[in-house]
Amino acid sequence: MNEALELQLSEVVHQGDSERLADYLGSLEPHAMARQVCELSDDDQTAMLTALEPAAAVEVLDDIPEVERTEAVSHLSPEAAAAILHELPSDEQADVVGALTDDEAGAILAAMEPAEAEQLAQLASYPTDTAGGLMATEVVAFRSTAKVSRVLERLREDAYRLRHLDVQYAYVTESPRKLVGVLRLRDLLLSEDDHTLVELMRSNPVAVNEDASLFELRELFDDHAFLGVPVVDRESNLLGVVSRAAVDAATQEQAASDYRRSLGLVEEEIRTMPTLRRSRLRLSWLSINIVLNIVAASVIACYQDTLSQVIALAIFLPIISDMSGCSGNQSVAVSMRELALGLIEPFELKRVWIKEALIGLLNGMALGGLLGGVAWVFSGNPWLGFVVGVALAFNTLIAVILGGSLPLMLKRRGVDPALASGPILTTVTDMFGFFLVLSIATLLLPKLVTH
Amino acid sequence: MNEALELQLSEVVHQGDSERLADYLGSLEPHAMARQVCELSDDDQTAMLTALEPAAAVEVLDDIPEVERTEAVSHLSPEAAAAILHELPSDEQADVVGALTDDEAGAILAAMEPAEAEQLAQLASYPTDTAGGLMATEVVAFRSTAKVSRVLERLREDAYRLRHLDVQYAYVTESPRKLVGVLRLRDLLLSEDDHTLVELMRSNPVAVNEDASLFELRELFDDHAFLGVPVVDRESNLLGVVSRAAVDAATQEQAASDYRRSLGLVEEEIRTMPTLRRSRLRLSWLSINIVLNIVAASVIACYQDTLSQVIALAIFLPIISDMSGCSGNQSVAVSMRELALGLIEPFELKRVWIKEALIGLLNGMALGGLLGGVAWVFSGNPWLGFVVGVALAFNTLIAVILGGSLPLMLKRRGVDPALASGPILTTVTDMFGFFLVLSIATLLLPKLVTH
Repeated sequence: MNEALELQLSEVVHQGDSERLADYLGSLEPHAMARQVCELSDDDQTAMLTALEPAAAVEVLDDIPEVERTEAVSHLSPEAAAAILHELPSDEQADVVGALTDDEAGAILAAMEPAEAEQLAQLASYPTDTAGGLMATEVVAFRSTAKVSRVLERLREDAYRLRHLDVQYAYVTESPRKLVGVLRLRDLLLSEDDHTLVELMRSNPVAVNEDASLFELRELFDDHAFLGVPVVDRESNLLGVVSRAAVDAATQEQAASDYRRSLGLVEEEIRTMPTLRRSRLRLSWLSINIVLNIVAASVIACYQDTLSQVIALAIFLPIISDMSGCSGNQSVAVSMRELALGLIEPFELKRVWIKEALIGLLNGMALGGLLGGVAWVFSGNPWLGFVVGVALAFNTLIAVILGGSLPLMLKRRGVDPALASGPILTTVTDMFGFFLVLSIATLLLPKLVTH
Repeated sequence: MNEALELQLSEVVHQGDSERLADYLGSLEPHAMARQVCELSDDDQTAMLTALEPAAAVEVLDDIPEVERTEAVSHLSPEAAAAILHELPSDEQADVVGALTDDEAGAILAAMEPAEAEQLAQLASYPTDTAGGLMATEVVAFRSTAKVSRVLERLREDAYRLRHLDVQYAYVTESPRKLVGVLRLRDLLLSEDDHTLVELMRSNPVAVNEDASLFELRELFDDHAFLGVPVVDRESNLLGVVSRAAVDAATQEQAASDYRRSLGLVEEEIRTMPTLRRSRLRLSWLSINIVLNIVAASVIACYQDTLSQVIALAIFLPIISDMSGCSGNQSVAVSMRELALGLIEPFELKRVWIKEALIGLLNGMALGGLLGGVAWVFSGNPWLGFVVGVALAFNTLIAVILGGSLPLMLKRRGVDPALASGPILTTVTDMFGFFLVLSIATLLLPKLVTH
C-alpha cells in the first residue's frame, strides 16, 4: 500500500496538473507528505515546487527535514526560489538562505526585491545560534507618545497582516528606532483608550544584543515568562524579536544532536540521501576511531609473551575495554547534563574529581569483584581472578573520573564535548585497561602459569 | 571564592531572618542560586523553604532540577508544602505531586482546600506524557451568546489574575462545558464591540483527548501555529489547555534523555545526590552490561587453541568489538531520529535493511581494508590481514543492519529503544565478531602459523 502511495506522488507530479498536485498534497498527513517528498528524485522535487503556488510550496518545505529543504531550494531556479522565500517570515528566510552555498544564496538574493534582499543578507550573516540568527525582523512598534485608541485603530487596519504573524508584544520606540518600552498586546486590550503608550509601557525592557548566545537566551527565557525578547544593537536600536518558540526549537535540536554527535553523526542524516554521502558522513568519524583503537591495542602487542603463556587473558581484554567505556560515558553524560543545566562551571574540575572518585571506587569494586569472581571460577585460578578484578576496578575509577572531567576540559578549550569526549575517553581507558591487566599479569606470571 | 558563597547560603539560613534570606536569594543569579540550594543539607533546605513566603519558595523550586525539587517538597511539612503548591499553576502542581510517593502526596492533598485537592488529585493521576498530564486547568471560557463588549469588561475586571496566567485563547462553550469554539485574545482586540462570540469564534476548534500522547501533541503543534490546544473528554467537555511551551519542554526533555538512557542513566542524576544512590543508579545498567559482555567473550573461550597458536589475534579482538559497536550505534541513532521525525514507521524493517545494507557494505570494506592492511603490515603475514579484514567487513555489515533495525523492532514490542538498543547490539555484534575472526582463523590455521 505504501509503495502504491509513493508511486502516486511522482505520478501526480508527472501529470503536470498543478491544481491536482495541490489537492493531492493537501490530502496527505504531514508525515506521509514529508516522506513522499523526500523520496522524489531531485528533478521531480523541482518540478513539484515550481508547479505549486509559492504559498503552497512553502507549506511543503516547512514539513520536510532541514537538510532536504536546503537541497530542494538549491535545485530551484533563483526566481522560483525567491518567490517561495518571499512567503516566509524573515527568520525562516534567513535559515534557508544561510544553509545554501554563497553562490546559490547570491543568485536567489539577486532575484529578490532589493530592499528585501538587503535585509535578508544582513539576517543570514548572523551565526545560527545567536540572537541575530534566531530573530525575526517583523515587529509591531509605535512611538511612545501614541494614544491607546490610535494604536488600536492602527492595529485593526493592519489586522490582516497581523493575523499571519506571531505577534505577542508591541514595542515602544523614540527618535526613530531606540527601544524604550514594551507592551503586551493584552495590556492594550485591558486598558483605557485615552492613555498614551508611555504611561502603559514597561520601561527599560529586557532586551538582548544581536550576538547573545543561545545559552544566554535559554537562561533568559528560563528566568522570565516572556514569549519573545527584543533584539537591539549597541545603540539600543530595535532590530527584531527572538521568540520563545525559536529558542525552544534551537535548544531541542541541540539536545538531540548531542546524542548523534557522540556517535560521530555531525550532519543530519536522512535515509533518502545518496548512499555514498551517508557512508562518507559516518566514515569520517569511524576512521578516526579505528586509528585510535589500533593505537590502544598496540599496548597488547607489547605483552604477547605474557598473553601466550596465559591465553585466558585474551578473553577478558574486550570486557575490560567495553566496561570501562560504559562507566566513563555515563560520567560524560552526567557532566554534559550539568553543564547544560548550569549546575557546574567548566573550571570546577576539582569538584567533579571528588564527586566522581567515590562513584568510581564503589562501581569499580562491584564490577571488578564480579568479573574477578568469574575469571577465578572459569580458570580455577584465584590469581587470574585477582589480576582481572583489580585491573577492572582501577580502570573503572580512572574512566569515571576522566569521563566526568573531559566535557569540562574540552568546553574550556572550545572543543565540542559531545563529539570528542567518547573517542578520547575510550582510547585512554583502553590503553590503561590493557596495560593494567597485562602488566599485573606479567608481575604475577609465576602464579598464573604454575597452576 | 565559590566555597565562600556556598557557605553563605547555609549561614543565612541558620540566622533565621526570613527577610534577609529572601534578599540574599534575590541577589543571586538563577544558576548560582540553584547550585547553592542543591548543596544545602536536607534540613537546611526545609528550614529555608519554610522560612520564605510561599510565593518566594515557589521561585526557588522553579529554578532547581526536578529531582531535587521532588525531594525538597517531600521533606516539608504537609501544610508548608500545600501552601507552596497553592502558588503554582495547576499543571506544575500536578508535576510536583505526581513525582511524590502516594503517602507523601496524600498527606499534602489532605492539607489543601478540598476543591483544589480534588482537582489536583485528578490531574496528577494522568500519565506524565499525555495531554492530561501536560494540561493546565486554568482556562478563560465564555458562553457562545456573550457579546464582545461584555467579555472585554469581564476580562478587565479579572485583569489582575489574567496577568499572572499564560492565557492566549478564550474558549467558547455551550450547555455548560461543551467546547464549541475558540478565539485568540487578539481577535477580541481587533473586533467590534457588538458582535457575539458565536459570530467571531472559529467553530469546531482543534482539540485533543486527555489521553493524546506527547507524540500526537508534537505533531499537532508542528502542523499548526497554535500556542495552546484545548483538552476535552469524550463528550467534548473542556478540561484544560496544553500549551506549546509545555509540549516543547516535554519533547526537549525526551530528546536529551535518549542520550542519557543510551548510557543506562534512567533517572536524572545530579552530583549533589547521595553517593550511594548515584552509584546504584549507574550500576543497575552496568551490571546487566557486564553479564552480556561475559556471555559474548565466552565465544573467545571456545577458541583458545587457535588463539594460543596465533597470539596476534588477541590484539584485534577488542578493535573488532569496539568498531562494530560504533558502526551499529550510528545506525541506531539514525533510526531513532527518523522515528522521532516520523520519517519511518516501526513496521518498515525491509526499507531499513535495504538502506543500511549498502552503507554496511561500503563502510565494512573501508574499515576492513584498513584494519586488514594494518594486521598484514604488523604481522608480515597477508593471511592474518585477510582474516581480520574479512571479519571486520562482514561484522560491520551485520552491525549496521542490526543497529538500524533494533529501534524499530523494540518500539513495536513497546521496549524503550534508547535504553535497550545499545546492550543488545553490542552483545550480538561482539559474539558474531569474535566468532568470525576466530572461526576463519581456525579454518586457515596452517596459513597463519606456517609463516
